[in-house]
Amino acid sequence: MNRTYRLLLDCPDQVGIVTHAGEVITRNGGWISEAAHHSDEDSNWFFSRFEIQADSLPFGIEGLQEQFASLADRFQLNLKFTDSAVPKKVVIMASKGSHCLSDLLDRWKSGDLKCDIPCVISNHEDMRGLVEWYGIPFHHVPVNKDDKAPGFAETERLIEEYAADCIVLARYMQILPQALCERYRHKVINIHHSFLPSFIGARPYHQASRRGVKLIGATCHYVTEQLDEGPIIDQDVARVSHSDRVDDLVRLGKDVEKTVLARGLRAHLEDRILVHGNKTVVFS
Amino acid sequence: MNRTYRLLLDCPDQVGIVTHAGEVITRNGGWISEAAHHSDEDSNWFFSRFEIQADSLPFGIEGLQEQFASLADRFQLNLKFTDSAVPKKVVIMASKGSHCLSDLLDRWKSGDLKCDIPCVISNHEDMRGLVEWYGIPFHHVPVNKDDKAPGFAETERLIEEYAADCIVLARYMQILPQALCERYRHKVINIHHSFLPSFIGARPYHQASRRGVKLIGATCHYVTEQLDEGPIIDQDVARVSHSDRVDDLVRLGKDVEKTVLARGLRAHLEDRILVHGNKTVVFS
Amino acid sequence: MNRTYRLLLDCPDQVGIVTHAGEVITRNGGWISEAAHHSDEDSNWFFSRFEIQADSLPFGIEGLQEQFASLADRFQLNLKFTDSAVPKKVVIMASKGSHCLSDLLDRWKSGDLKCDIPCVISNHEDMRGLVEWYGIPFHHVPVNKDDKAPGFAETERLIEEYAADCIVLARYMQILPQALCERYRHKVINIHHSFLPSFIGARPYHQASRRGVKLIGATCHYVTEQLDEGPIIDQDVARVSHSDRVDDLVRLGKDVEKTVLARGLRAHLEDRILVHGNKTVVFS
Amino acid sequence: MNRTYRLLLDCPDQVGIVTHAGEVITRNGGWISEAAHHSDEDSNWFFSRFEIQADSLPFGIEGLQEQFASLADRFQLNLKFTDSAVPKKVVIMASKGSHCLSDLLDRWKSGDLKCDIPCVISNHEDMRGLVEWYGIPFHHVPVNKDDKAPGFAETERLIEEYAADCIVLARYMQILPQALCERYRHKVINIHHSFLPSFIGARPYHQASRRGVKLIGATCHYVTEQLDEGPIIDQDVARVSHSDRVDDLVRLGKDVEKTVLARGLRAHLEDRILVHGNKTVVFS
Repeated sequence: MNRTYRLLLDCPDQVGIVTHAGEVITRNGGWISEAAHHSDEDSNWFFSRFEIQADSLPFGIEGLQEQFASLADRFQLNLKFTDSAVPKKVVIMASKGSHCLSDLLDRWKSGDLKCDIPCVISNHEDMRGLVEWYGIPFHHVPVNKDDKAPGFAETERLIEEYAADCIVLARYMQILPQALCERYRHKVINIHHSFLPSFIGARPYHQASRRGVKLIGATCHYVTEQLDEGPIIDQDVARVSHSDRVDDLVRLGKDVEKTVLARGLRAHLEDRILVHGNKTVVFS
Repeated sequence: MNRTYRLLLDCPDQVGIVTHAGEVITRNGGWISEAAHHSDEDSNWFFSRFEIQADSLPFGIEGLQEQFASLADRFQLNLKFTDSAVPKKVVIMASKGSHCLSDLLDRWKSGDLKCDIPCVISNHEDMRGLVEWYGIPFHHVPVNKDDKAPGFAETERLIEEYAADCIVLARYMQILPQALCERYRHKVINIHHSFLPSFIGARPYHQASRRGVKLIGATCHYVTEQLDEGPIIDQDVARVSHSDRVDDLVRLGKDVEKTVLARGLRAHLEDRILVHGNKTVVFS
Repeated sequence: MNRTYRLLLDCPDQVGIVTHAGEVITRNGGWISEAAHHSDEDSNWFFSRFEIQADSLPFGIEGLQEQFASLADRFQLNLKFTDSAVPKKVVIMASKGSHCLSDLLDRWKSGDLKCDIPCVISNHEDMRGLVEWYGIPFHHVPVNKDDKAPGFAETERLIEEYAADCIVLARYMQILPQALCERYRHKVINIHHSFLPSFIGARPYHQASRRGVKLIGATCHYVTEQLDEGPIIDQDVARVSHSDRVDDLVRLGKDVEKTVLARGLRAHLEDRILVHGNKTVVFS
Repeated sequence: MNRTYRLLLDCPDQVGIVTHAGEVITRNGGWISEAAHHSDEDSNWFFSRFEIQADSLPFGIEGLQEQFASLADRFQLNLKFTDSAVPKKVVIMASKGSHCLSDLLDRWKSGDLKCDIPCVISNHEDMRGLVEWYGIPFHHVPVNKDDKAPGFAETERLIEEYAADCIVLARYMQILPQALCERYRHKVINIHHSFLPSFIGARPYHQASRRGVKLIGATCHYVTEQLDEGPIIDQDVARVSHSDRVDDLVRLGKDVEKTVLARGLRAHLEDRILVHGNKTVVFS
């Protein structure tokens, strides 16, 4: 895996964007190792992603950025440049449930999830030992249900202290304050334990059992002010039957949750996701 | 495939039901080729299905029924006996869309779907030729949107005339009158083009596209008075992406719809489904 | 769906191909509505597909081709230009089994599969009525197992007469002569009823049952001289259990076969497939 | 989850087995909470599984066993009785790869996998810390490639010392000696990183990449003397594309491997698997 610069771009759709963007890259000798484009006909919006070999360019990422300046003006481009050699700082927030957290930690340690995990924040002590075994600082920040403000203030302080690029709610089970969601817009990733928009809200597996569905699911999405309404990144399902009780749904759902969360986070870490309105473009 | 008698049974849960039922069968020499049982702990209800080789018994299906009389009293059994040699009469109702209808007809002709199809009823003429090629009577019964009563009266008359055991709404696109639903309770099978309870109501693929889901689905269910709320028989999903527009969702959804409808109908035809409240037990 | 020209391109990998190709298109005002690229690091080969709005160009497809001439020389490009307004002529070959044929015909009639079907060739009479109901000529060409040459000669004659662009073996059950395969290289699509490379050869469902697998599959591939060894286009599977006998596997497998064949054919018709060696690049 | 006794039974197929077995249970007041049966028509063999509420019986598991003695003689029953309150002792063998091991440990700690794990044996030191964090003894037993006998002797000694009921090869990467396999017949569970019988042998992901398959898979099976030929317990697949390189297949495959291994092990722990010849009956 060579070092690459990644360019995410979106703008009103019009002729020539791919070519002009490619031309900026190529005239400087840039080697494009991946490129993907999408025109959304409903919103008349264009989305593009380029991955460029870093060592094929005569300058660094700022140089690349400068080269794009006039094009950005002309086509009203929203641009985002990232460097595959700069791992994102991912703060994980967890509660008592271990399946998503333990899964993420194993993927991180084995190198399958390329990021830094500067700390784990939890409202319970349960997972301290495991997290610390991985060499990651663990912060127990209780959230008092009668007054959540102090807990969330401390949470926000830690997120800033660790300079988080991304926050993962690994079955954190608390609703984050609106201000925090807005501040980290499209940077807070949640795993919801249902196939959204089915079973919004509390205890989705109980709802699923009551309705008698034959598949259960999980949804990875960006957190917005509207609970369970944020842009969906990925979803998946598992088959269940009449013989599965609520606790079976919970157990079977865990496999879906952890897989979907890891897939969604990976797409985010590789800068494969563009958000437009309440929908995502995820370039595979 | 030998001829079998099928026994569906449900009752309040209690000790000994499987054994007593088995004993009635076995003391008459009955060879049980399949048996499945389920205790629902929430409702404290018991469900069972037996398949018995017909030629192992010294009497026919009525004889078997008589043998069960005293047990039925004692355990308050709901019993249903069917004979694999008596194919159910399935009236298919269709509209302009051909995918489910054409799929069912092919399965029927190839012998994979063991039933009689005495007629197809449609509110459009489009599929007459295909249906008639299969040697099945086709009835065009328009449903006038300003006065649906005459159309539904004719529909009901045909259903009775053909002595339908089961009615399949193969993307029929009309809501049946409540009286008809009640009369054919748990005998009218619908395919809804969403993963219920997501996207209840009209134009689910449009709703799905707007919400930006990453999987679309279909749900086969018994029709009840509550639209889209009936007991779910089977569901499945297909993966979609940002590049799929509404017409792509419609197209991809067709594959799911026809597969799920055929699976659900097959379970019904083989008497594998018991309904309790708003949920199904489907013995595989 | 506007009319588009599609450009498939592959060549030894090197800097600037995407940009140069894009530049040829854009300098002529061409509006790229889809573009996808792939670099294969093992073979150091590059693959690309562009879809261009026809009415954005000042010339037709030959004009576009001419514009690419010098670039083709310089980069040793393999180029293929197609016009979405020119439907491919797909000759379907079938045998007694109806599921794939009937599925393709329904997709074709409903407009989901954009192609012409100039004729169906079968070594059995069984499906004549259905095919003719769809208004498609049906040719019964028996293949005598003691001397297959006359049957295949007639087959080849028909394929030429109808100027087939593509031949689909919809469970045709006969091995085509090597000369025909070579002549229509990467234009003959077969559906094999196993998850290749498992269960190569005859009666794969019997092999699967004997081995006790828990999933069965189907594989859509281009036909080459090596039976069951051609480049794979698409595959899928279905879950089975100990209770499924060989005839159940056959039945469950049909759903997979017809879905995978339709998906593979669709990718071919939309010019989404590039073959390199024995592998395919399928741009979604 | 109440305490239950589980009865696994298989025998030549004949009339009345289910009933007679049920009668033995019921005449002693036994409450059957689950029952499943299967007749294999090819081998004319019958399989059955009962789960009986322990506190509904006036005696313990030995008492139940005695009650079955005469029936066992009469019908040549193979019988196996287990007690849900006696967790199986599962020795896990691992190598450097952590994904299956870490997944199993998390499932075990959260209570989703009901068993004891008396120790983990590995030919590498890498996972010692994690295993010990879970409070489980870790034994590093190197297997020297020039003389494997001492390593395997020590392995066998440990397995005996810990009185293992079951051995899980969690990507152990070594072929166990034949004598050990025979001694723990149908008690050694392996996860093979391909969709068997595809890609038997070494480096299946490399084989899969070379063949250009569009799905990769994993297979959980009992280990027998014939490598990769043992009875299959469970399998699953994941979709891949031309853009996935071998290291992507390896990464995507890990999710399938760990899920399938956990599912297979769970079925084993709940005594849901009967082996006949080279095939399994897995009662869900």
